Amino acid sequence: MITTLPNPTDTRPDTAIYERRESVVRSYARSIPRQFGRAENVWMFDSQGGRYLDFLSGCSTLNYGHNHPVLKQALLDYISADGIAHGLDLHTDAKAAFLDTFERLILAPRGLDYRAMFTGPTGTNAVEAAIKLARKVTGRELVIAFTNGFHGMTLGALACTGNAAKRSGAGVPLPHVAHEPYDGYHGDGVDTAALLERRLSDPSSGLDAPAAFLVETVQGEGGLNAASPDWLRRIADIAKRHGALMIVDDIQAGCGRAGGFFSFETMGFTPDIVTLAKSLSGMGLPFALTLFRPELDQWSPGEHNGTFRGNNHAFVTATAALRHFWSDDGFEQHVLQGSRLLKARLETIARSHGLSVRGRGMMHGIDAGSGEVASAVTAACFTRGLIIETSGARDEVVKILAPLVIDEAQLMAGLDIVEASFSEVLTAAYGVAAE
Amino acid sequence: MITTLPNPTDTRPDTAIYERRESVVRSYARSIPRQFGRAENVWMFDSQGGRYLDFLSGCSTLNYGHNHPVLKQALLDYISADGIAHGLDLHTDAKAAFLDTFERLILAPRGLDYRAMFTGPTGTNAVEAAIKLARKVTGRELVIAFTNGFHGMTLGALACTGNAAKRSGAGVPLPHVAHEPYDGYHGDGVDTAALLERRLSDPSSGLDAPAAFLVETVQGEGGLNAASPDWLRRIADIAKRHGALMIVDDIQAGCGRAGGFFSFETMGFTPDIVTLAKSLSGMGLPFALTLFRPELDQWSPGEHNGTFRGNNHAFVTATAALRHFWSDDGFEQHVLQGSRLLKARLETIARSHGLSVRGRGMMHGIDAGSGEVASAVTAACFTRGLIIETSGARDEVVKILAPLVIDEAQLMAGLDIVEASFSEVLTAAYGVAAE
Amino acid sequence: MITTLPNPTDTRPDTAIYERRESVVRSYARSIPRQFGRAENVWMFDSQGGRYLDFLSGCSTLNYGHNHPVLKQALLDYISADGIAHGLDLHTDAKAAFLDTFERLILAPRGLDYRAMFTGPTGTNAVEAAIKLARKVTGRELVIAFTNGFHGMTLGALACTGNAAKRSGAGVPLPHVAHEPYDGYHGDGVDTAALLERRLSDPSSGLDAPAAFLVETVQGEGGLNAASPDWLRRIADIAKRHGALMIVDDIQAGCGRAGGFFSFETMGFTPDIVTLAKSLSGMGLPFALTLFRPELDQWSPGEHNGTFRGNNHAFVTATAALRHFWSDDGFEQHVLQGSRLLKARLETIARSHGLSVRGRGMMHGIDAGSGEVASAVTAACFTRGLIIETSGARDEVVKILAPLVIDEAQLMAGLDIVEASFSEVLTAAYGVAAE
Amino acid sequence: MITTLPNPTDTRPDTAIYERRESVVRSYARSIPRQFGRAENVWMFDSQGGRYLDFLSGCSTLNYGHNHPVLKQALLDYISADGIAHGLDLHTDAKAAFLDTFERLILAPRGLDYRAMFTGPTGTNAVEAAIKLARKVTGRELVIAFTNGFHGMTLGALACTGNAAKRSGAGVPLPHVAHEPYDGYHGDGVDTAALLERRLSDPSSGLDAPAAFLVETVQGEGGLNAASPDWLRRIADIAKRHGALMIVDDIQAGCGRAGGFFSFETMGFTPDIVTLAKSLSGMGLPFALTLFRPELDQWSPGEHNGTFRGNNHAFVTATAALRHFWSDDGFEQHVLQGSRLLKARLETIARSHGLSVRGRGMMHGIDAGSGEVASAVTAACFTRGLIIETSGARDEVVKILAPLVIDEAQLMAGLDIVEASFSEVLTAAYGVAAE
Repeated sequence: MITTLPNPTDTRPDTAIYERRESVVRSYARSIPRQFGRAENVWMFDSQGGRYLDFLSGCSTLNYGHNHPVLKQALLDYISADGIAHGLDLHTDAKAAFLDTFERLILAPRGLDYRAMFTGPTGTNAVEAAIKLARKVTGRELVIAFTNGFHGMTLGALACTGNAAKRSGAGVPLPHVAHEPYDGYHGDGVDTAALLERRLSDPSSGLDAPAAFLVETVQGEGGLNAASPDWLRRIADIAKRHGALMIVDDIQAGCGRAGGFFSFETMGFTPDIVTLAKSLSGMGLPFALTLFRPELDQWSPGEHNGTFRGNNHAFVTATAALRHFWSDDGFEQHVLQGSRLLKARLETIARSHGLSVRGRGMMHGIDAGSGEVASAVTAACFTRGLIIETSGARDEVVKILAPLVIDEAQLMAGLDIVEASFSEVLTAAYGVAAE
Repeated sequence: MITTLPNPTDTRPDTAIYERRESVVRSYARSIPRQFGRAENVWMFDSQGGRYLDFLSGCSTLNYGHNHPVLKQALLDYISADGIAHGLDLHTDAKAAFLDTFERLILAPRGLDYRAMFTGPTGTNAVEAAIKLARKVTGRELVIAFTNGFHGMTLGALACTGNAAKRSGAGVPLPHVAHEPYDGYHGDGVDTAALLERRLSDPSSGLDAPAAFLVETVQGEGGLNAASPDWLRRIADIAKRHGALMIVDDIQAGCGRAGGFFSFETMGFTPDIVTLAKSLSGMGLPFALTLFRPELDQWSPGEHNGTFRGNNHAFVTATAALRHFWSDDGFEQHVLQGSRLLKARLETIARSHGLSVRGRGMMHGIDAGSGEVASAVTAACFTRGLIIETSGARDEVVKILAPLVIDEAQLMAGLDIVEASFSEVLTAAYGVAAE
Repeated sequence: MITTLPNPTDTRPDTAIYERRESVVRSYARSIPRQFGRAENVWMFDSQGGRYLDFLSGCSTLNYGHNHPVLKQALLDYISADGIAHGLDLHTDAKAAFLDTFERLILAPRGLDYRAMFTGPTGTNAVEAAIKLARKVTGRELVIAFTNGFHGMTLGALACTGNAAKRSGAGVPLPHVAHEPYDGYHGDGVDTAALLERRLSDPSSGLDAPAAFLVETVQGEGGLNAASPDWLRRIADIAKRHGALMIVDDIQAGCGRAGGFFSFETMGFTPDIVTLAKSLSGMGLPFALTLFRPELDQWSPGEHNGTFRGNNHAFVTATAALRHFWSDDGFEQHVLQGSRLLKARLETIARSHGLSVRGRGMMHGIDAGSGEVASAVTAACFTRGLIIETSGARDEVVKILAPLVIDEAQLMAGLDIVEASFSEVLTAAYGVAAE
Repeated sequence: MITTLPNPTDTRPDTAIYERRESVVRSYARSIPRQFGRAENVWMFDSQGGRYLDFLSGCSTLNYGHNHPVLKQALLDYISADGIAHGLDLHTDAKAAFLDTFERLILAPRGLDYRAMFTGPTGTNAVEAAIKLARKVTGRELVIAFTNGFHGMTLGALACTGNAAKRSGAGVPLPHVAHEPYDGYHGDGVDTAALLERRLSDPSSGLDAPAAFLVETVQGEGGLNAASPDWLRRIADIAKRHGALMIVDDIQAGCGRAGGFFSFETMGFTPDIVTLAKSLSGMGLPFALTLFRPELDQWSPGEHNGTFRGNNHAFVTATAALRHFWSDDGFEQHVLQGSRLLKARLETIARSHGLSVRGRGMMHGIDAGSGEVASAVTAACFTRGLIIETSGARDEVVKILAPLVIDEAQLMAGLDIVEASFSEVLTAAYGVAAE
């Protein structure tokens, strides 16, 4: 029986096997030092019987919560019947069902005409395919990405990522990408789209003609910066006028997180290419897609491939998720209502500490002013049973990525913890009671 | 009831949905034009009731066959109990069990001391992590890969891949990699390890000091070229003397395909870094690992990460596979016996047409002399119910990648088809009856 | 006897030999279709007896005019005495005299402590040496250059050049350089130094830590944009705080053209590295220098070399030029007076057409609004006997680069031609008499 | 009055000014610690009255000796008459005369149809232009250079240079070039042209389709390795069949050094592009040329330019040199005779020490076995009044680059010194008298 409140344990697990055999590259296990076994809906359970409310959701991979019963049953049925698990890019019943459902429930109602490329089942692979295609179609090399953008860790995608620590891991230069200021980057007085337009229109600016613009509508890792629809429309327009493709990386903001199925749905422009991953399978299974206008589908057979590009388990759960959540507008309304509650509550918390809120939809956070404060807050949340993380160039944003299926009571219970944790930390830090 | 013989249909599926919505980048569906639904052991079943013997095995991803009952049951149990599906890199029971089992059954008996890095669940991601680490640890940029090597499609791994068509898909240059001649590349008279040593020892050769050598012991995509243990030992020795790391990409040849769990086990050298993927999960689920000596584990937390780097379903099936197949040497003996039968039979077939056999272990094929002949042979096989593909720089090798669990009768049934198909094609081509 | 007025011919030379044997890459000969034989002071003489006033001065290579008698005599004496012409980087009397004189007349009076590196005798080579050294000393790769910058045509320098047509000639990507907005690039409302500071201070901006800033104080090829001393001081300060070196490319603006011997002399900052070429030899002989603070002199012997790095003829004329022109402040005063006259006269001309003046010192021009108008003006000048060229991203600036030794009557005679040509062109274009 | 014997001083010059003001990058001045003032024919004179025989010749820049009276007089006349010194790429009498003479005396008699591109006056700039053009014309990026090749120090040319110490000075990667084994690199048993052909013909070798092959017929800096005409013809043929251009870098071996005016003249193939510099001006003045077939002349005007691309003083001396030395075959016969004497004498010296001779024409040397021995030999030569240097990957070759105008007595006097120095060093080293 699931109740509304977390019930954390304070026992650290035995980590000897990790110390011996897992690389020190692991990261989340450091700030969330428990060993988990089971998870359901918004809850994660550790091996000592503790229960945690999940405001991380696999970095937006579990928008429908953990082990949603409808998705779970579909997968159990499929496996029990010896449904094909791995089929390279062969035609399968599961793939056909996914494509049919995606066309009927996602593309058609939104008036979108895209082809789907099943890339290797990681977001970074979907981004690599997107920029490969843009370079091939345009015959150009430069990709314009944006400050604070995050697009993945393989060399092509990493070149598009802004974070200096991630970039330095490459060990080689990361060329063919320019990082231009995102919306609002230089403050209210500077129109960053105009700066970009100026340089692209100048044959002597040194900014080469771009193959593509690669942009997140909300920067999930970069600090929950949300671009305005107007800015995004102008970027799309600049791209078109300069012969470049507009790629929206919707890996974190898509699948309902920032509003509609696509984060850009109501903004008045249509990207040339879209990348999806994370919550696409619905149950956390590896799955990624690159979508593009049919005219851009200029690949040779197998020109970009990968062993796991047809994860049929993921097709099954993704299809079930589309049918369950996206057949009518009920889920979107639920997310919309949750977003309102979330934003309002965060603004109250932020205001009481003189802080500000960032984000859009169910992808909001509080800029805590520094990485030290933000990580103290998330640590305080964790001791209260809330799993939550930071974001931003200096990890300065406390980021709420609750499952979209969360109900109001659960959401408020989690935000109570966030509020208390901010008070605790800022009181401790500044000697002032927050209440 | 599974019998020994395939029973193909000749009905092409309705492909309208693929034409409308799937990118033309798809490839295998072109030469294997059926829609599949179910698969078990060595068999795949199409939607019209046809049964096919699988000599492709997901390009060596299904070494234990499709939906092996032990793995399947473990996964069903795990999902039914709401086991965590997606957990980023958090500690989980499933991960701990995998690491324990991998240490106990794989590393310890072989005297190997490696740390495991769970990369994004694709082979290309494991390769990217391997070369990033090698560059970081050595402070050098150049990776020496080999002619006909195949290592993946994201930009870092693609740079290490030899195939010109794949490479040109990048749309940008692929620097920091030199492709040196593989064992036997220049024929018997030329010692390619000596050529490499000569250039590395010459301060004016223009070949910069390498961070790593990246090598497959058998080149799966490159035409089933098998390097000799002596050559590999010498390459490992050259690497060591020149301050470079030796990376074995065991993604296709590992997990029993070429012999032991690792393809290099009995060869007298220990790689610094090893990449695994494909059959690692045992059931075709996306999963990849990069292994390295503990001294090389110099990553910062999260320096290389990825959303799906902890695929817990794959941990579960991988653990079950290790326990079922690698607790004693029974499976290895079975593979060894199958390899003998395979090689002997292929040599008989090849000899009768004046052709030659390539490969090692359960990774053998016949060099058909040209891509045209080879693809005619695989097409002829398909009409007889055998799923099989080609390999090599010009797709000139008919490649047998049967599930390792295949029994002798099934193997022989498949090889009967291979034999008949060679005869049919070469008779048709040259007007000479093969029998 | 030289008079004040040009006396052009209208006879085109026989160009058959050029058509047959010279590459079509030639450019100036197209807009200045004469064959020249002799030149003296501000005058060039064609083979048909025509006399032309030179407002191009070899793109600022002939600041002291053609064949200045003092320099000429020094060179004749040297050659007659069998002075060493070519000596690699051996010590020679001529080199010692140059270094002594440069130290005494240029460095010491200005309080500058630089070492001189004699690079290959081209400006592009001096720039290549400068950025090599900056990369070596800092261990970083990125060079920050600026919009509309021009630094040369070999690959390292070309990467720092903004012009798209020049860049595309490379045939390969030009990485490791970011082109940031120059002073005033985004108009009065945008402080481009602040934009740069913001991105360099942000660990997630995607702008990597730079080895150097490479800047011209006045952009000779880029349209005579003159940076303010304040902006340059701030760039120097940003460089220092971010661990980057400040390189001033003084190839076109140095040697008196923009004011003092160095264009940055009175601006309140000291570059870490300075490049010189063009007018350095004084007589148009190939000669280039890279100067840097002694602490940066971390080269290995011969690490950057070149056959002609010791052009002793150039040492001789450069030494004579330094002694003749830079022993006291007479020449600087002459240049200052010329600059005032030039600027005032150009502003009068520009104002009468609603145009604007750009530049600094004896490096001014009129922005004609378009490349078409500007080239029509320079063509009209040429028919009147004035050799003059355009500059700028779209060749929209009529650029005056008169020899610095020009007297007032000659300068005014040339500017009369400029004025008449503007009137002719703009009258023709717009049907309005300029007078 | 010039005699046959050197007369060195043993006084080191005052180097205070160099210590204070010249970069430590200087190199030759270290092993040749004198200050020179005057030079004539084969002799250099230091400031203390010493006389040195020059077996370095500015690294083959002074093939006609120092200050040849005919060239010197032509230059004095030109300067005295106020001949244009610097003219960008304007038509001048001096350029027309050079082109006419080059066409008449060099191209026409050899049946060569080339266009001349006057690049910046350094060898590296001529190489940069050559590879830019090859990349532009072919639309490919890769240049195939060779082990031990030396082509210059700006980034494009440096990427083609094999020497690791020079390469590391770049501070950035040097991509788009593969260094393949030169003729004989792997010993007599390995046909390096066949190795190259094999990899270029293999679509999976990882060696991309090349824009050009860049080769020296004799590697001046790389150790005087001389390619056989047969190997060069085959490389030219491989280039043609693979759509690549054949570039001969004749900067050091051309202008008579290796035999004819071009080093490849009698070898049975015609390069697509040729670079010249060093001895082209005849008097050591900076001058470089890139020659190519007219069909390749696809430059846009000014696409590759440079301030000093029209060094008219060099046109004058180059024209005088062509007329004086290349109007008939007398000079070639003289060089041929000198080459015979040189080779025979070196073989005698080498044989007596169990060493071997390398090179071709007036470009021969003795492989001393190690850099230590070779530099000891050149140091011993210097104390006897002979200026001579080493070459090779480890500086192991004592290199004779005497002026081509040297007479037999002078040549033998120098070789006497070489012989004595070898004996002294090898006797000292091994305790064995050489005689």
